[in-house]
Amino acid sequence: MELGPPGGAGPAEPGPRLRGLRGDDRAASAAWLSEASAGRRAPSVAAVLPAGGSGERMGVPTPKQFCPVLERPLISYTLQALERVCWIKDIVVAVTGENMEVMKGIVQRYQHKRISLVEAGVTRHRSIFNGLKALAEDQPNSKLCRPEVVIIHDAVRPFVEEDVLLKVAIAAKEHGAAGAIRPLVSTVISPSADGCLDHSLERTSHRASEMPQAFLFDVIYEAYQQCSDYDLEFGTECLQLALKYCHTKAKLVEGSPDLWKVTYKRDLYAAESIIKERISQQICILMDAKEDEEHVGRCLEEMLKKELNHVKVTSGALCHAGRDLQQIILEQCYNFVCVNVMTSDFEETRKLLNALEESNLSILYPVVVISVHFLDYKLVPFGQKMEHLMQIKEFAKEVKKRNILLCGLLIYYPQE
Amino acid sequence: MELGPPGGAGPAEPGPRLRGLRGDDRAASAAWLSEASAGRRAPSVAAVLPAGGSGERMGVPTPKQFCPVLERPLISYTLQALERVCWIKDIVVAVTGENMEVMKGIVQRYQHKRISLVEAGVTRHRSIFNGLKALAEDQPNSKLCRPEVVIIHDAVRPFVEEDVLLKVAIAAKEHGAAGAIRPLVSTVISPSADGCLDHSLERTSHRASEMPQAFLFDVIYEAYQQCSDYDLEFGTECLQLALKYCHTKAKLVEGSPDLWKVTYKRDLYAAESIIKERISQQICILMDAKEDEEHVGRCLEEMLKKELNHVKVTSGALCHAGRDLQQIILEQCYNFVCVNVMTSDFEETRKLLNALEESNLSILYPVVVISVHFLDYKLVPFGQKMEHLMQIKEFAKEVKKRNILLCGLLIYYPQE
Repeated sequence: MELGPPGGAGPAEPGPRLRGLRGDDRAASAAWLSEASAGRRAPSVAAVLPAGGSGERMGVPTPKQFCPVLERPLISYTLQALERVCWIKDIVVAVTGENMEVMKGIVQRYQHKRISLVEAGVTRHRSIFNGLKALAEDQPNSKLCRPEVVIIHDAVRPFVEEDVLLKVAIAAKEHGAAGAIRPLVSTVISPSADGCLDHSLERTSHRASEMPQAFLFDVIYEAYQQCSDYDLEFGTECLQLALKYCHTKAKLVEGSPDLWKVTYKRDLYAAESIIKERISQQICILMDAKEDEEHVGRCLEEMLKKELNHVKVTSGALCHAGRDLQQIILEQCYNFVCVNVMTSDFEETRKLLNALEESNLSILYPVVVISVHFLDYKLVPFGQKMEHLMQIKEFAKEVKKRNILLCGLLIYYPQE
Repeated sequence: MELGPPGGAGPAEPGPRLRGLRGDDRAASAAWLSEASAGRRAPSVAAVLPAGGSGERMGVPTPKQFCPVLERPLISYTLQALERVCWIKDIVVAVTGENMEVMKGIVQRYQHKRISLVEAGVTRHRSIFNGLKALAEDQPNSKLCRPEVVIIHDAVRPFVEEDVLLKVAIAAKEHGAAGAIRPLVSTVISPSADGCLDHSLERTSHRASEMPQAFLFDVIYEAYQQCSDYDLEFGTECLQLALKYCHTKAKLVEGSPDLWKVTYKRDLYAAESIIKERISQQICILMDAKEDEEHVGRCLEEMLKKELNHVKVTSGALCHAGRDLQQIILEQCYNFVCVNVMTSDFEETRKLLNALEESNLSILYPVVVISVHFLDYKLVPFGQKMEHLMQIKEFAKEVKKRNILLCGLLIYYPQE
């Protein structure tokens, strides 16, 4: 076991990668990742995604994981949610033979990383088992390593956040197994044979078992090797297998409402609206000034924060903010405001445009960049500033070919 | 009991009112309604809607039943779904004192009928109990009558169809209690005290208990009168009360996926998309020719059926189709094609426009009417037809003030 170092990108760089985690999670993640620096190795983590379902409940011919949401297959959003978590080293996706080429096409088109495809089984459990087998086989030619912890997630739960992945992984390391749960939305009842109510369950003493779940690899692999054909055919709950065959009581982790599973057509509608909202509401402000500096640029930032839900700010020159920016791009922020306080040229904007072009973020949706420049009319001659600004037209024409929409904004103000 | 005849609009007219029911349901409904003609009275049915919730799971300050969906409060869609079922005589809505005026405003603005408002209690069960009390009290001044069967539904399940309402009402008449159920989406687990998995439930032997539910009024009223304060404070399941206090085992009725409860913000997104789709995909074709007639108008009809999901057709002159049309308007169809085969004037279109204006359907969304006219160039002089058609401009200008968009379409064809 523990054959590989965790996460190709290196676990010793927690800083910018942990954006979006709340206080406690950030601390937990830092602790988790700092095991490496303490001389112990942080546990290696892989993920298995069963994606062999037919989606019959959806009422559409396409399996739901391949249904388009804003013209992009649902599973691609889920893969993106997993691959932006740097400490998940491998992502094994189980796909049916007939969808294998479709899946390869998706991985290629959306440039997913760290993905391995295996053939799905005829049931969910068999698909997961196939994924685990691929991770277990330490063959010389395989690029997969047997991980210490394996996360199992659904292809049709696209909004999983790093914090819950981290929580289940940490809990699995400690307890052997862990899974996300949610309160029940409806009362659960048990029908009698004649289709009448036998009894109803106390809603407060039950929970819905959701995904992700995580396991010590040895525990869940052992459970799958031991379990019966009946389990593999008719079972659905991995936590139950770990309990039944390895006597491992899973730790239950309260998940957020985001974890819901796309099951019906209405869920696709909901997913689409959520993604639309994210794209339109998320904005990244880059400012070439220190965070504690008072400036008219800060006022702009405060105003935007009032108007929009998700404002991310990264300060300092781009060469320093580069890692932050990479992460923000990875999280699919499509709106950027580049505030230039220190300089009057386009160096910073140009760096941002380069980073965006390299990321290929604009393959699917246009990226909007607003380059903001301030002109204190007492200090800078108007003509000189304008001359610079006219260059933006040329930039705009150039980047528009790559689906990046660039606008220039000149704010003319007196310093007092 | 059985004080009033069922449904003010009369149960002996099942024809156009049963549109949208599938074969079996139509038969069942016809049987149910024909009890009247057989000398027995059909059971009187009322509905109770608890709408006192605060919607804390939604993460928004407005209680979810009042959240706007396409600018209209969610509860208004639910009321509409109930009031278009003619055999539900009274609809009692339990609203908190602070939202009473809001609710009155909604009833007035969207012209809801057969609604009575009562004060909600602090829990769901107390709200339902208040609704039942209002129905039980046969006071001289009250316009409410004690029904034989009462349907309990949620204000936040706007897409309930007549067929499931009918099924639970019929089952309640027979069994004393009935409720809609759905398969579980997630496995249900029971946690131990230390937050670990104790056991998971067999998914196939459990169901989610949804709404609507229906009861013999005496059964559920008795159950509420008997039940403990603890039940009223912490319980949520009406079927359970009927079982516990009246030993009535509810019949379980398989519901459609539409029955889901708007719980989270994503559900509002889904509701919005479903309503949008319904508005854009539903079209009503009115044709002034007999159904078995061969005509180019029929070809148009066939073409539209191929392109759109929900095409309703009503044939014969509007004076005969009036009842069908009323029902279609009640179901909120916003798109109309008026095909004029027999006449070359606008009498039929004008009748449709009058019916639409009277219905106030266009209060919220524009109604689109396309008036189609055929011109066999061998039979009718072109100039004469055109003259008639120019009148449509005047009509269009007039009705546009009332948010009805009228277009004329002239199809010029040789009869062979």
